[in-house]
Amino acid sequence: MRRSAQDTKQVILAVARERFAADGYDRATIRSIAAGADIDPSMVMRYFGSKEGLFGAAAEFDLDVPDLDRVARDQVGATLAAHFFRRWEQDSASLRILLRTAIVKEAVADRIRGIFAEQLVPAITGLGEAPETARVRAGLVATQMLGVALCRYVLRMPPVSAMDTGEIVAWLGPTLQRYLVDQPSPSGASADTNGADSVPFPLPESGA
Amino acid sequence: MRRSAQDTKQVILAVARERFAADGYDRATIRSIAAGADIDPSMVMRYFGSKEGLFGAAAEFDLDVPDLDRVARDQVGATLAAHFFRRWEQDSASLRILLRTAIVKEAVADRIRGIFAEQLVPAITGLGEAPETARVRAGLVATQMLGVALCRYVLRMPPVSAMDTGEIVAWLGPTLQRYLVDQPSPSGASADTNGADSVPFPLPESGA
Repeated sequence: MRRSAQDTKQVILAVARERFAADGYDRATIRSIAAGADIDPSMVMRYFGSKEGLFGAAAEFDLDVPDLDRVARDQVGATLAAHFFRRWEQDSASLRILLRTAIVKEAVADRIRGIFAEQLVPAITGLGEAPETARVRAGLVATQMLGVALCRYVLRMPPVSAMDTGEIVAWLGPTLQRYLVDQPSPSGASADTNGADSVPFPLPESGA
Repeated sequence: MRRSAQDTKQVILAVARERFAADGYDRATIRSIAAGADIDPSMVMRYFGSKEGLFGAAAEFDLDVPDLDRVARDQVGATLAAHFFRRWEQDSASLRILLRTAIVKEAVADRIRGIFAEQLVPAITGLGEAPETARVRAGLVATQMLGVALCRYVLRMPPVSAMDTGEIVAWLGPTLQRYLVDQPSPSGASADTNGADSVPFPLPESGA
């Protein structure tokens, strides 16, 4: 049975994500991706124009952020942590390729910055935040959620790579809750921290 | 004035970190590093044996973790967040090269896993934790601290890259405090999350 153009594109994208993630951008070839999708290389070029075009389409990542202002205020962190984790696990190949290539290709780093700015900031603005505050909150959420993606899918750092999703989400939920709705510099930090330009805590001398 | 062998090695390592970070492992050359250190390439080989040996020495990263059991229990998170940040800012070139190369070179990913396992887990075990629990806590700390390093130094994601260290530390301190000493699944998460194998929170349908 012939595949529709839409199906063919999806198959090509799935193979492209695998090849880019396994081989890296430079070593992955249109030829090997076409072979994996059981299609002629010229068709890949016809659909995506170039290797860059194919990469751009393969690296697109829809965070699919839930409508946070329809969630109980004290559950936004847990909801978002669970949601992110579901997206990460669904699409860990895309996420891995995005992170791997973002680190060496500035254009892809720019794509990740764009994904957060375009998809996460508006969701937080929807919670009633001023845009500048929403950007800070989105940035903090990104540090935690990209960090867990890095440790789990790229570095495969135990035990982060082995923990079950329910356990990780239970740990990360309260973190995101604080980043999303709490005031800056909550209880754990001393008062003189605010706006200080250098690290404000007295540190014990270590042995080294 | 002649430099001592120790000084020369430090100069070579400093230049190597810059070159590996700027050019990546494959494109950085012994020749360009030697030129930057104003020394003959044969001397670089004599000190470090090979490009791999030089890379290994340049990528060494001492977390220099403070002695946490000498810190007031309710301040361990703030102390560790401030300490990590001071280390990151001191040595952001080394950190960037470690992250950049870890993502493409399995041997370097292994080095990062080793750094956390050998340096952070013992500090947490020193707080009186069983080794297995200490490993989970260290992993959670790693997700947050490597995530902020990724967003700030590699992806240069605003506003994370622009926030001053005091502000970031004030946000991250309570996160590390919870990861270091709190019980799993604290208040923010619903009870049925524990040990669940899939994401437990009902999510609102999003528009996409």
